[in-house]
Amino acid sequence: MRTVKWNYQTSSVELIDQRILPDVFRINSYSDYRSLAIAISDMVVRGAPAIGATAGFGLALAGFQSRAMTLPELANDYDQAARILRASRPTAVNLDWAVNRMQARVSNMITEKVIQNIEEFRIAVLKEAQNIADEDVKTNRRMAEFGSVLINDGDTIIHHCNTGSLATVEWGTALGVIREAFDQGKRINVLVDETRPRLQGARLTAWELEQYNIPYEIICDNAAGYFLKAGKVNKVFFGADRVAANGDVANKIGSYMLALAAFDNQIPVYSVFPTSTIDLSLANGDLIPIEERPMNEVLDIQLAGQRVVPLNARGRNPAFDVTPNRLLTSVVTEKGIVTHPFFEGFKDIVGEGVERKI
Amino acid sequence: MRTVKWNYQTSSVELIDQRILPDVFRINSYSDYRSLAIAISDMVVRGAPAIGATAGFGLALAGFQSRAMTLPELANDYDQAARILRASRPTAVNLDWAVNRMQARVSNMITEKVIQNIEEFRIAVLKEAQNIADEDVKTNRRMAEFGSVLINDGDTIIHHCNTGSLATVEWGTALGVIREAFDQGKRINVLVDETRPRLQGARLTAWELEQYNIPYEIICDNAAGYFLKAGKVNKVFFGADRVAANGDVANKIGSYMLALAAFDNQIPVYSVFPTSTIDLSLANGDLIPIEERPMNEVLDIQLAGQRVVPLNARGRNPAFDVTPNRLLTSVVTEKGIVTHPFFEGFKDIVGEGVERKI
Repeated sequence: MRTVKWNYQTSSVELIDQRILPDVFRINSYSDYRSLAIAISDMVVRGAPAIGATAGFGLALAGFQSRAMTLPELANDYDQAARILRASRPTAVNLDWAVNRMQARVSNMITEKVIQNIEEFRIAVLKEAQNIADEDVKTNRRMAEFGSVLINDGDTIIHHCNTGSLATVEWGTALGVIREAFDQGKRINVLVDETRPRLQGARLTAWELEQYNIPYEIICDNAAGYFLKAGKVNKVFFGADRVAANGDVANKIGSYMLALAAFDNQIPVYSVFPTSTIDLSLANGDLIPIEERPMNEVLDIQLAGQRVVPLNARGRNPAFDVTPNRLLTSVVTEKGIVTHPFFEGFKDIVGEGVERKI
Repeated sequence: MRTVKWNYQTSSVELIDQRILPDVFRINSYSDYRSLAIAISDMVVRGAPAIGATAGFGLALAGFQSRAMTLPELANDYDQAARILRASRPTAVNLDWAVNRMQARVSNMITEKVIQNIEEFRIAVLKEAQNIADEDVKTNRRMAEFGSVLINDGDTIIHHCNTGSLATVEWGTALGVIREAFDQGKRINVLVDETRPRLQGARLTAWELEQYNIPYEIICDNAAGYFLKAGKVNKVFFGADRVAANGDVANKIGSYMLALAAFDNQIPVYSVFPTSTIDLSLANGDLIPIEERPMNEVLDIQLAGQRVVPLNARGRNPAFDVTPNRLLTSVVTEKGIVTHPFFEGFKDIVGEGVERKI
């Protein structure tokens, strides 16, 4: 079951609607790339790798929607779709990465005359989107293999947000590592950060862990420090939405405070992400754009069916924060585990451009 | 308007029901100390100073309820009530403090023959409970005066949990300091930690700030690090439920992670509490008993009217954590501001016993 999928019968993109899980399992179908961009902003789909793959398929949709009669007209329609898809969420760089990769690939094929007409263009774009999605699954499995050596039998792990199948095309990043270690027979208990305000932990991670039969307990984000200080936690794992060249990691709001509390208690912290999440154009995490989402996501919380905040209350809702590299023990990518100095490690695994950019 | 009050017409204890604010403002009336103990555990009333005063009035209730015919029988009934009230919540030491103070006072009066019959005993107990409540208000005003010098015009302050009128008999501890500074004409913006799981910040602190016309914005607890790191916060304020002799502060869950994030960004952290919150019998915060409350307080969170966690989900719910004294800039009491080493300062203001205990 893939989180993001192209339907070859209907030429549409199918997404598991993550806003209503675990209460309702529903697949939404999109045949307009603009609706798909809105689905990304509304968090029908979320998780950096998943929205990267979704944007890829969104570009493919744009091709099928286009009424262009010539290749340049079609290229123009793709460019417009690329702009709209890129703008759907600002922090996760995988979105840019997927769109860039597709544009570069198609542009090469045009130059090399592999694409000679509109239909070939459409097919080539869809094929590249499908490649991105398929590679994501393989990438996740490789990260899981590399990362699973970091987990010992008996570990209690704090996990933030959702980084499982639902955050990717399939399998997951940080949660994929945990799942792999569990499948190897290691006994694991996961303390699931509920992850306010959208509760991806309490809703999505808990739902996934239940399906995999991995024991878990849900905690409020602000309780992680208590458990870390009490010596009850062996490791902290989370994903990443954008990683700067120096290893600073932008991830779901709360990751920074969690990493601080782990660091203060000498508990290792691991961030797991594909190399497509690394943005070598940014020297450090202060340069990563942080999305601020509508305040109602914070204010709409209910207890016993009642909205709890005063009627005229206002709020602030930054969706991500940056964990400085000094708080990370190491990071896991599909090309291996990288440790300090991350700059050097990234140079090795990504292999180009980093030297002149930081 | 007092949060905790004795009704002299009906010989009952009146509490503002804090579980349903700000939606509904309701005063509950208690004429049975056992029901009052349940009200404390259920958090009809919460906040260390407020539950101290409530326990005092609870003992007074026990006197009016008792059918004892002799002073020793009555003393016995008081002892039983004291045990039940003390056990209603384990972390806040003000509960113990209030009960101890009342027992010591009454025992003195018996020894000195000031109390000679059952009726005098009842009246003396009630009078001492009323003294505790009245002194709490004065204590809060003194803390507010001392603490307000720490706040500058234009400050943005992160505040955790509720420490206002509702957490005390009247006025408040940390929020009382903020209110005093605001009343002095200082412009203040409060970032209100929502304070999961019971949302005392989003519900109670926001409600109080609205009444005082102090500008505020509600944030998720896990977003505090973002604002601290972004240089948008000048100070962090919270209360305390029990303070060890070395200055380690047990306070609402999340205080520790908040203090860590402030410390990591060189933002001062202040804890505000009456000296009745200091427990000199405990050398450090590791010895403070931490209450773990029912997991449903974590799991019952709703968005759009729906419970969000999987049906069989389990959770953990520690209600407090300990902030090590190294993370605190200074603390504010009714006897003045105390700074490092707190042990020395506490010795000066509390004045006895500390030397042989740590």
